[in-house]
Amino acid sequence: MTISKGPQVFPRTEYLRRLQAVKSEMAKREIEALVVTFDRNINYLTGYTARSAYVPQALVISNHDEEPSLILRLMDAPAGIHLTYLERNKVISYPEALVGNPEKDGYDAVIDFLREANLSNRGVGLEMGQLPARAAENFKKRLPDARFVDCTHVVTWIRAIKSELEIALMKEAAAIADAGMMRAAQVIRPGVHEADAIAEILSTLAHGANGKHGTGIANIYMCSSPRTGTCHITWSDDVFRQGSQVNLELGGVRHTYTAAVMRTFSIGKPSDRLRRLHDAEVAGLEAALGTVRPGATCNDVAQAFNQTIEKHGFQKDSRCGYGIGIDWNEAVTSLKEGDMTVLKPNMTFHLMLGNWLDEDFGYVLSETFRVTRSGADVLTGVPREIFEI
Amino acid sequence: MTISKGPQVFPRTEYLRRLQAVKSEMAKREIEALVVTFDRNINYLTGYTARSAYVPQALVISNHDEEPSLILRLMDAPAGIHLTYLERNKVISYPEALVGNPEKDGYDAVIDFLREANLSNRGVGLEMGQLPARAAENFKKRLPDARFVDCTHVVTWIRAIKSELEIALMKEAAAIADAGMMRAAQVIRPGVHEADAIAEILSTLAHGANGKHGTGIANIYMCSSPRTGTCHITWSDDVFRQGSQVNLELGGVRHTYTAAVMRTFSIGKPSDRLRRLHDAEVAGLEAALGTVRPGATCNDVAQAFNQTIEKHGFQKDSRCGYGIGIDWNEAVTSLKEGDMTVLKPNMTFHLMLGNWLDEDFGYVLSETFRVTRSGADVLTGVPREIFEI
Repeated sequence: MTISKGPQVFPRTEYLRRLQAVKSEMAKREIEALVVTFDRNINYLTGYTARSAYVPQALVISNHDEEPSLILRLMDAPAGIHLTYLERNKVISYPEALVGNPEKDGYDAVIDFLREANLSNRGVGLEMGQLPARAAENFKKRLPDARFVDCTHVVTWIRAIKSELEIALMKEAAAIADAGMMRAAQVIRPGVHEADAIAEILSTLAHGANGKHGTGIANIYMCSSPRTGTCHITWSDDVFRQGSQVNLELGGVRHTYTAAVMRTFSIGKPSDRLRRLHDAEVAGLEAALGTVRPGATCNDVAQAFNQTIEKHGFQKDSRCGYGIGIDWNEAVTSLKEGDMTVLKPNMTFHLMLGNWLDEDFGYVLSETFRVTRSGADVLTGVPREIFEI
Repeated sequence: MTISKGPQVFPRTEYLRRLQAVKSEMAKREIEALVVTFDRNINYLTGYTARSAYVPQALVISNHDEEPSLILRLMDAPAGIHLTYLERNKVISYPEALVGNPEKDGYDAVIDFLREANLSNRGVGLEMGQLPARAAENFKKRLPDARFVDCTHVVTWIRAIKSELEIALMKEAAAIADAGMMRAAQVIRPGVHEADAIAEILSTLAHGANGKHGTGIANIYMCSSPRTGTCHITWSDDVFRQGSQVNLELGGVRHTYTAAVMRTFSIGKPSDRLRRLHDAEVAGLEAALGTVRPGATCNDVAQAFNQTIEKHGFQKDSRCGYGIGIDWNEAVTSLKEGDMTVLKPNMTFHLMLGNWLDEDFGYVLSETFRVTRSGADVLTGVPREIFEI
């Protein structure tokens, strides 16, 4: 029996628009095929969201075909048909014998496909920034007549500017992130095990907000005293304590589109240092948002933040944020001094003002925003305060 | 201020034992340095569990140093000190200027480290199966006198055999997985939104079992009709319906050690075909477990399963399982015909009997087990039945 097409997150026209943008970039690079292996980019171009990227998979875009071909492991092909807009015959499966096989793997099936499609002596784009080195060597060895072009960020740059349909999902995701953060404010209490608070937050992130359910769970970072100088720890196997500070970062997810938010909690009265840093960061956040408009640069936003907190006697080592969308961070834009990327309407950013001043002391504050025609539209919306428990 | 050392998941002696095993493998390959970049392997060798692998990071093991050096982004270094057994001076940070920089990245800091440590003209192992191609090219370009050896699975093979301390965590993780599955049996009901059931399951996986909390959340795959022929879909944005089947795969997590379990749910009376497949799979599962003992091979286990279900008139395309441990699947062993890996005590496997017979029909059943001195110890323990709702 054949599997039906599932409900599509976006209409076919949206995917074809994205595809056309990729083909324009391919033409500029004089390549006839692009092999997309980064799972977020495959998702963007097809609607495929299954979590199968732990084995090789690829979307092959050819100038000779209107629609691309999605090459998946046999067991994942039904999901490829069900989830994507692609015609059934554009979902190609490779046999299970290529899984757990030290001699050959799924990339060999991709290479075979390029040979059969007569693309083996053409210009071929690869995402060398994500493709494993061993796979890249295999492409070069088995396609000796191809001219390979590194196309690591070609699709990601296109992803950086969202359509209105994508913005709608980002807004839904932001409302879910807000709900998660407000739930955290209810459940972080002295004596409560961190994992038990996380249970409530996870539950909220799945239940969703405004009738829109969470469709995935992004990493949650919960860094409590004495770990407030760290940033990417999930949660500890301990309880919250009176006098502790908790730095929390989480995201809401709608069909892989993710909006993130960070807030700082204080169980008991915040220290003077924490209050001063908070005041500086809120001022910096407002200054940064105040610079956002089409034509300004990532550099401008970062400068506004940095100059403001410097006036308050602080500085921040790390960038002030980055593009955000499918599965959280995008790799191409950074809100940092020196990044001269020009802001355009419907770019979306995580204005990430986490500031880890000492090994054992940091503070977090962030918002997810989009660039509008005239400024910034902040999608997340929890109070910009230290949540005092 | 400096950050304190956190509670360590394993004693220092455990990490030194693992390190010694790696150094033995390095000696066999005549390399003087091994650059470990796969996050699960870094975790295994140091205790570092922060989710920072979206930027470059590496553990460099040198024959000239007793302890390895962990090279992290500046903002992640405090977590490196707090979480690991390493001396403070063995956690090396690279500047934020290397993040979001198209010219140089964190791998350049790793290369600089190798040069400064006088390892640039020696044998150097790289994990080419996970390292991005662009990074591998950079290593070769900037260290032209080094002899590079592909060491992709060197650490993973060592990870495949667990210590008693690791087995204890796997058992805790399995109990959490069981609790999640039993919670699913309580909340999967017609008319309930899939995400609302997931909320309850997630909550259970975080609360944990037997007083041990979940320390992370693994992917959950929930494939309900008409998607029972798929396997890696998270959950749909829809409600459960009378007459639907639900295939559920989830994992419990203790300090990144993951135990997985799969069960099939039927909302209403299961079809005859589903019952027959279930009976075949349970018989196959028992036959497979019956072959497990040190000295038997992965091939033997798969043959026992395959031959049994063939007698029942079924077959399964995909492998019957794989090694499992840190962050779910290990890449080196497969329970499939032709994999002649010899079973050894304290290897742990996900006996994964998901069987996707048609594009639109599949069934799932699995257990996580360890090899004992005389057989198999099944760690997960929910009833082996179709959960009829």
